[in-house]
Amino acid sequence: MPFVYERTVRLADTDAAGVVYFARTLSICHEAYEAALAAGGIDLNGLLGANGIVVPISRSEADYKRPLRPGEKLRVSVTPEPLSENSFAIRFEIMKLGPPVKLAASARTEHVCTAPAKRERAALPAALAAWVRAG
Amino acid sequence: MPFVYERTVRLADTDAAGVVYFARTLSICHEAYEAALAAGGIDLNGLLGANGIVVPISRSEADYKRPLRPGEKLRVSVTPEPLSENSFAIRFEIMKLGPPVKLAASARTEHVCTAPAKRERAALPAALAAWVRAG
Amino acid sequence: MPFVYERTVRLADTDAAGVVYFARTLSICHEAYEAALAAGGIDLNGLLGANGIVVPISRSEADYKRPLRPGEKLRVSVTPEPLSENSFAIRFEIMKLGPPVKLAASARTEHVCTAPAKRERAALPAALAAWVRAG
Amino acid sequence: MPFVYERTVRLADTDAAGVVYFARTLSICHEAYEAALAAGGIDLNGLLGANGIVVPISRSEADYKRPLRPGEKLRVSVTPEPLSENSFAIRFEIMKLGPPVKLAASARTEHVCTAPAKRERAALPAALAAWVRAG
Repeated sequence: MPFVYERTVRLADTDAAGVVYFARTLSICHEAYEAALAAGGIDLNGLLGANGIVVPISRSEADYKRPLRPGEKLRVSVTPEPLSENSFAIRFEIMKLGPPVKLAASARTEHVCTAPAKRERAALPAALAAWVRAG
Repeated sequence: MPFVYERTVRLADTDAAGVVYFARTLSICHEAYEAALAAGGIDLNGLLGANGIVVPISRSEADYKRPLRPGEKLRVSVTPEPLSENSFAIRFEIMKLGPPVKLAASARTEHVCTAPAKRERAALPAALAAWVRAG
Repeated sequence: MPFVYERTVRLADTDAAGVVYFARTLSICHEAYEAALAAGGIDLNGLLGANGIVVPISRSEADYKRPLRPGEKLRVSVTPEPLSENSFAIRFEIMKLGPPVKLAASARTEHVCTAPAKRERAALPAALAAWVRAG
Repeated sequence: MPFVYERTVRLADTDAAGVVYFARTLSICHEAYEAALAAGGIDLNGLLGANGIVVPISRSEADYKRPLRPGEKLRVSVTPEPLSENSFAIRFEIMKLGPPVKLAASARTEHVCTAPAKRERAALPAALAAWVRAG
């Protein structure tokens, strides 16, 4: 069962077309990823440079299938997939709650563990690697 | 020659990892697209519902190759590509100005013209279609 | 008892200084206001022009007292105050949950009901006026 | 003569009410402040912790006078004011270019130099103090 994150669309997510701004959809996915990490006992701050490593996103893809309006309720599923000892992917599905429930967007991000001081790839921290495998 | 948009990285573009937040890279691409439309004499507001059509993004892809820090100067190229009478794509390259100049990210968006009242695809407005072909 | 909204600080809220970007604090307050309206049975979309009125923010003030980091948990209280038949204010307090709990920021916004077509102020919708008085 | 920053309203600045989201107005002011610092030869990154000091915003006020729509052109003036050896304020005026030119918003921010390691206020760096006095 993938991790699930619930979220209401807020005015700040939208633009003058009246619906969620496309890039903000990816921010909502990243929020869900952060919540999934926290639920897995992994401290996001440890992936932002504090331990000599960072795990930035190297690639994103998203399909925007339905417009999302202020006040609509979303459910985001988060499914990690191993790629290598240095990297993993996350698949996201954003469902618009209804009834009926409908797929609003899907996305996929790739994350690469890097040691900035050495300018080279690094092995994923053990806890993060375990979380990815358990996904 | 593609349209080129220049932009400085601002604090609001970045996150606690010290570099541009991944989804914000796509916002910067969209800014460049808006500037390209304006340079082509096309009013963005006419694509946001005012004329009974909207031209939302249906898909995005991005590769994030180098971190971007506050104050760094960027040059974004915007290259439209026709897909169908209802749709087109835009290719973006974000160069970090140097010296040396380096490719920081590339992205591609797909845009589909839709008539929301009819819930169906619509032909691109003539001026927009011409702009895409000229790209 | 004021309405209370809980929120976790997300990476997208922060900037390269490692903490929440100042203006984003006001976005978090506005999210809390939107949640308070929804809890009071008021549809935000009805305040965005659909009924011939808008209720934009005419003024904001905020005091930023403590830095907020990714993953920190916040509790935002929302207290409306009547100003006139056309306007109201909202006071916000953002507490950082601990232990110990600490005041991280306080803010105040003023909202004015306007009829854009007439370019003049309009009376608050009855349900919104009642929500403000009940605050 | 205050420093002046020009900016076009972008879709990402707006929300479903069709105009610039209130908190984003403050982000636009901060962009102007960053441009003013750069024009004064001051590196923003030096104020984000690299030198053992940070200069966060402790207070903001803003009056939102006119709605701003996608594609509109803005001119932001930036006027620093000394407050103490540790702090300063900035006044901003956002003019909507026309014709006619109209005041769209005004804002004021307060900035306090702090040494996070000592958890106490610190003197402004000399170059920043000189920039404030010259304002």
